[in-house]
Amino acid sequence: MAKAELLLLAVVSTLSVLPFSSLAVYQDFCIADLAASATPGGYPCKPAKDVTADDFHYGGLGSPGTALKPFKISLGSAIVTTFPGLNGLGISAARMVMVPGGATPLHSHPGGTELIYVVEGSVVSGFISAALNRVYTKTLYAGDLMVLPRGQLHFQYSHGNATAVTLSSFSSDNPGLQILDFALFANDLPTEVVNKVTTLDELQVIKLKALFGGRG
Amino acid sequence: MAKAELLLLAVVSTLSVLPFSSLAVYQDFCIADLAASATPGGYPCKPAKDVTADDFHYGGLGSPGTALKPFKISLGSAIVTTFPGLNGLGISAARMVMVPGGATPLHSHPGGTELIYVVEGSVVSGFISAALNRVYTKTLYAGDLMVLPRGQLHFQYSHGNATAVTLSSFSSDNPGLQILDFALFANDLPTEVVNKVTTLDELQVIKLKALFGGRG
Amino acid sequence: MAKAELLLLAVVSTLSVLPFSSLAVYQDFCIADLAASATPGGYPCKPAKDVTADDFHYGGLGSPGTALKPFKISLGSAIVTTFPGLNGLGISAARMVMVPGGATPLHSHPGGTELIYVVEGSVVSGFISAALNRVYTKTLYAGDLMVLPRGQLHFQYSHGNATAVTLSSFSSDNPGLQILDFALFANDLPTEVVNKVTTLDELQVIKLKALFGGRG
Amino acid sequence: MAKAELLLLAVVSTLSVLPFSSLAVYQDFCIADLAASATPGGYPCKPAKDVTADDFHYGGLGSPGTALKPFKISLGSAIVTTFPGLNGLGISAARMVMVPGGATPLHSHPGGTELIYVVEGSVVSGFISAALNRVYTKTLYAGDLMVLPRGQLHFQYSHGNATAVTLSSFSSDNPGLQILDFALFANDLPTEVVNKVTTLDELQVIKLKALFGGRG
Amino acid sequence: MAKAELLLLAVVSTLSVLPFSSLAVYQDFCIADLAASATPGGYPCKPAKDVTADDFHYGGLGSPGTALKPFKISLGSAIVTTFPGLNGLGISAARMVMVPGGATPLHSHPGGTELIYVVEGSVVSGFISAALNRVYTKTLYAGDLMVLPRGQLHFQYSHGNATAVTLSSFSSDNPGLQILDFALFANDLPTEVVNKVTTLDELQVIKLKALFGGRG
Amino acid sequence: MAKAELLLLAVVSTLSVLPFSSLAVYQDFCIADLAASATPGGYPCKPAKDVTADDFHYGGLGSPGTALKPFKISLGSAIVTTFPGLNGLGISAARMVMVPGGATPLHSHPGGTELIYVVEGSVVSGFISAALNRVYTKTLYAGDLMVLPRGQLHFQYSHGNATAVTLSSFSSDNPGLQILDFALFANDLPTEVVNKVTTLDELQVIKLKALFGGRG
Repeated sequence: MAKAELLLLAVVSTLSVLPFSSLAVYQDFCIADLAASATPGGYPCKPAKDVTADDFHYGGLGSPGTALKPFKISLGSAIVTTFPGLNGLGISAARMVMVPGGATPLHSHPGGTELIYVVEGSVVSGFISAALNRVYTKTLYAGDLMVLPRGQLHFQYSHGNATAVTLSSFSSDNPGLQILDFALFANDLPTEVVNKVTTLDELQVIKLKALFGGRG
Repeated sequence: MAKAELLLLAVVSTLSVLPFSSLAVYQDFCIADLAASATPGGYPCKPAKDVTADDFHYGGLGSPGTALKPFKISLGSAIVTTFPGLNGLGISAARMVMVPGGATPLHSHPGGTELIYVVEGSVVSGFISAALNRVYTKTLYAGDLMVLPRGQLHFQYSHGNATAVTLSSFSSDNPGLQILDFALFANDLPTEVVNKVTTLDELQVIKLKALFGGRG
Repeated sequence: MAKAELLLLAVVSTLSVLPFSSLAVYQDFCIADLAASATPGGYPCKPAKDVTADDFHYGGLGSPGTALKPFKISLGSAIVTTFPGLNGLGISAARMVMVPGGATPLHSHPGGTELIYVVEGSVVSGFISAALNRVYTKTLYAGDLMVLPRGQLHFQYSHGNATAVTLSSFSSDNPGLQILDFALFANDLPTEVVNKVTTLDELQVIKLKALFGGRG
Repeated sequence: MAKAELLLLAVVSTLSVLPFSSLAVYQDFCIADLAASATPGGYPCKPAKDVTADDFHYGGLGSPGTALKPFKISLGSAIVTTFPGLNGLGISAARMVMVPGGATPLHSHPGGTELIYVVEGSVVSGFISAALNRVYTKTLYAGDLMVLPRGQLHFQYSHGNATAVTLSSFSSDNPGLQILDFALFANDLPTEVVNKVTTLDELQVIKLKALFGGRG
Repeated sequence: MAKAELLLLAVVSTLSVLPFSSLAVYQDFCIADLAASATPGGYPCKPAKDVTADDFHYGGLGSPGTALKPFKISLGSAIVTTFPGLNGLGISAARMVMVPGGATPLHSHPGGTELIYVVEGSVVSGFISAALNRVYTKTLYAGDLMVLPRGQLHFQYSHGNATAVTLSSFSSDNPGLQILDFALFANDLPTEVVNKVTTLDELQVIKLKALFGGRG
Repeated sequence: MAKAELLLLAVVSTLSVLPFSSLAVYQDFCIADLAASATPGGYPCKPAKDVTADDFHYGGLGSPGTALKPFKISLGSAIVTTFPGLNGLGISAARMVMVPGGATPLHSHPGGTELIYVVEGSVVSGFISAALNRVYTKTLYAGDLMVLPRGQLHFQYSHGNATAVTLSSFSSDNPGLQILDFALFANDLPTEVVNKVTTLDELQVIKLKALFGGRG
C-alpha cells in the first residue's frame, strides 16, 4: 500500500500549500461578523476556524414571527442581519402568515427582486410596474409562484376563508424594505410636505399620522 | 375642477415623453423571449405590450414534478427557461418531494447559491466546503432554512418516517445543475478516464455506467 | 525614413489583426439599436461603422422639457431610450425646471441612485430611508449636490422666489421612475385595493383617481 | 381609536424586529468612514446612528475649485473621498470652469464613464475610441450632454469668447483620473524609458519634464 | 437489475424536464455568434446543439502573431472576437514575443486588468498608477508574474540579450486596447488639438504623425 | 520660463486637492492586508504609502510548486492569499508541471472560469458541461488554449512522453478549488452518506477513504 501512503503524504503536505488554507475561504462563504462595520459589499467574515454547521442554518422562520395586528399578518425574515450565513451570497427569505381579511401593506424592496411562493391558503398578489404604470395582479393558490421585480411597489391581500402562509425569497442578502404607510405617516415628515409631494389632503395625512405614530 | 383637468392633460401628455414609454420597460422587467438566442446576460425581452400578469406567475411547482424513482424524490424547477418572467432578475426556485429513504444525489449549482426551506417533514442537508474540505451537516425540520454556498457540492437525505417537501431558491435565474453521478456515469466519458481522474476502480465505474446509461 | 515606412506597414497590417477590428468595439461603446429587442443587460449595438460623433451627444436637455403643470415643473430626461449612446455605460441624466411653489412628486428610481445638482435657484430636497424610516432633508442652493440612494422615496420642493434649475445624474443608463401618485391613482388599481394596502380613505382615493385619471 | 392604538403598538414592536434595525441599513446607504481601510468594494460604513442629512449633501462644487492655471481651468470634484455619502452608490461628479483659451489636458478615468453637461458657455469635447482608434468630437453648447465611455482618452477645449462651466458625472463613486502629461512628465519615469515606449524625442521629454516637474 | 432499469428510465425521462434542456445551457457557456449584434453583456449564443469541443479551444497563440516591427515585438490575442468560446466568461489572453531591444508601446486596457507571465527571457515591466501618479517597475524573469491594474498606462521593454516570450491574461473577454502613439498620431486628431491637450510641441506631433500615418 | 513655473505651482497645489490623494487610490489598486478580516468583496487595502513595486510582482510560480506525487503533478498558485496584489482585480493564475502518466484529479472552481495555456509538452483536457452533461475533450499542444467554464467539473491527463507545463488563469482573484476525491474521501463525510448520495459501493468508498485519509 505504498501508493496510498505516498498519496496521503502528498495530500497532507498539500493542505497547507494549495488554496486550501483558511485564508482563502471567503470565496466559499463569509459568515457575517455583525459586530464589525459593514461595507457596501457586506460584512467582514467571521474567522473560518470558528464556523460550524449552525452558521449555515436558520430556524427563525419556524415560529410565527412579528404580528402586524391591524394588517392581520405576521412576518419573519431571514436576511444577513438575522442570518449571518447569507452574507455576500445574494439571497434571503421571509415568511408571512395572513389570516382571512389580512393584507401586506404596499411596499418595495430597494435592493432586490421578490419571488413569492404560497405554502398554504390563497392570496391575491400584485405589483405596479414603474415605466408602464400598469398593475399586474394574480390570485395565487398553494404551490404558485409570482415574481415581483426589484424596486417596484407591490402588495398582497387575503383571498378566501383560510389562513395563508407564504415564503418569499429575495435576490439579495439584504433587499431592504420600504413600507409606504411608514414612509409617509410614521416619521417626522411634515404634514405640509406630505401634502405637497403626494397631493394627499392634509386632513387625511393628519389622521394617518395619528394612526401610525408620525409627528410633524 | 380645472386643476384636475390640467393635471390630467399633463399626465397624459407626459406618458409618451417621460421615461414611461414601453421602450424603457426592461429596467423594470424583461420577460424572456425563449425563441430568440440567449446572451450571457439573459434572453431578449418579449415586447412589453404583450406582457400580462400571467408572465409573472408560475404554477408548475404545484404538481409533483419529475420522479427520480431510485433516489425516491420528485423535482420541479422554476428557472428562466420554464418561468420566463425570471429573466434577468437573479432568482429562481425548485421544489422537491422526498419519500422516506430518499436522497438528492450529490450535486452543485455552478451559477448560484441555494437557500433550502423545509415545508414539511425533515431532511438531513449538508455541503462540502471547497477551501477547507469540511462537511457542514444539519438536520432540518419544517420551517428551517439552510444556505448552500454557490458552486460547492451538497446533498440531502431523508430523515424520519414522513415524506419531506422542500422549497429551494437560488441567487440566479439560471443557477445550473451538475449531478455528480450523471457527470461521471451517464455520458461518454471513457471508463479509463474516469479511473484516471477520480481513482475510482474501473469495475465500479463500469457497474455505475450500466446503471446510469453511460457509454465508453 | 525607412524606419517610419516599416512602422507604418506594421501598423496598417496590424489594424486588421489586433483587437482593433470593429467586431471588438462593444467593449468601448455600444450605441443602442432601439429597433431591436432589449436584453436584461441593454440593447444590441448599432454597427460600429455607422457610429458618428452625434451618437455620443444629446441636445434634448437644452429645451424646457415636458411640463407637469400642476406640480409647476418641467422635466427632460436623457436615458438609454432617448440617448442611445448611454447603452451599457451605467449613467444617465435628467434636467428639471421648477417655478416658485413647485414640487417634484414623491417618487423612486428602482434601478439606480440619483445625484442632484442645483444649477440655479434653490430647492428643498429629501429622501426617506427604508430601513431606518428616517427623513433626510436639506435646502440646496446653486452649486450644491445631494445624493438620493437607490430605490428609496424622495422629493424636492421649491424654496425662495426664483425659478430653480437642477441637473440630476443616475447610476444606470435606465434608472426607472415610479411616481407614487401615478402608481396609486393613475391606473386601474381598484379603490378598494388601494384602501386595503395603504389605509387611505376610499373617498380620498376616489378624489385623487379623478384628478390623476385612474379607473376602478 | 382602539384600532390606531393597536396598530401603533404593532408598529413600535415591529421596529426592532423587522429589517428595520440599524444593522441592516447598509443596503440603503453606507456613509464612508474614511479613517478605516477601504476594501475593493468601498469603505466601511459610519454607524447609522451618527448619520445626518449633511452626510448626503456636498457643497464643495459651489466654489471655484483648484486652478490649473496654464490650462486655464479650475476643477472641483465630488468623489467618495471628498463626499463620503457616495460610498458604494456608483456615482460621482466634477465641475469645471474654463476661461477662453483653456483646455482640459488629455486624460482617462480608469474606473468609469463620464457624462459631461455644459452649464454655460461652449466647449469642444472629444474622445479617442480604443478599438477603432477613431476621434469623436462635438462642439457643445449650454444644455448639451456628451458621453465619454469608460477608460478611454478624452479632452475638452475652449470654444468662443465666454467662460464655460461644465458639470460631469461618473458611473463610479471613485472613477480615477489619469492625466497623460502627469503620467509621462511629472514623475520619475526615466526619459529614456518614455522615449522607448512612446517614440517621443528625448529632447521633447526633457523639456516637458522640466515643465511638469518630473525627474529622471 | 430492475433497479438500474428503473433508474435509467428515470434519468432518461428527466433529461428533458429538469434544467438539462439545451435552452438553459447559457449558464454553463455561451459560444459567441459573431454574426449577430453584440450587446453590452456580450454576443448572443450559438445554438447549443452545434457546439463542439473545438469551440472551447484556441490554437492561434501557437504561431508567432502579428509583427510590430519597429517595436520589435509580435503579438497574438485570444479575445472574444478571435476565440468565441470566451464570450461572457470574463477572461482572455495574449502572447508576445520580444526580440532584444524591443518594447511594448505605452498603452492601457479600458476594460480589464492584465496579469503578465514571463514564459522565457526577461523583460522590464511597469505601470503608472492614476491616483498617485507613481511608477511601479520590476524586472521580470521566466516564471515571474506582474499584475497591471485595470485602465492604467503600462509598458514593457526588453532586458538582456535573449528573446522574451510572455503570456498575459485579462479579467474580461474583451479588455480593449488603447495604444498611446496610435491615439495621438495614427488618426485624424488635428496637430493643433494634440498640442493643446498634451503640450507636445507641434513639430514633434507632425513628425510622429508622419511616422504613424496620422492626418490633420 | 515663467510658464513652466506657474504650471509647476499649479500641479503641486493640485496634487493634494484633485482626486490624487492616497485616500482615493483603491480605485487603482488595493493590495490585500491579509492580517485583516476579508469581506465578500475582498480584503481591506494596505496603506497606499507602504505599497512598492514588489506588491504587484509574484515570483512563486518560478519554482516547481507542491508535488501531488500519486497524480504525478506539481502545482503552484497565485491567488489573492499568496499574491495580495491581485485583491479585487478579478484575475489569478496557477502553474502545473505534469510528468508522463500524470493527471489533474477531477475538480471544479466554484468562483471562476479557467483558461489553460500549454507552455510545453501536451495534455488531454476536458470538462463536463452541467446542463447538457456532455464531455468536451481536446488534446492540447504547446501554444494551445482551452477555456473551462466556471463551476463545472474538469480534468487533464498526460499525453505523449514528455513532461507538460501549463499556465492557467482564472476570472477571479480567488476562484476556489473543489477536488472531487478530497470532497468524497478526505474528510469525515460518513461512508454510508457517500454511498447514499453517489451510489458508489461502500467497499469502494472505504478503500478510497483509506487512500485519501478520510474518516467515518
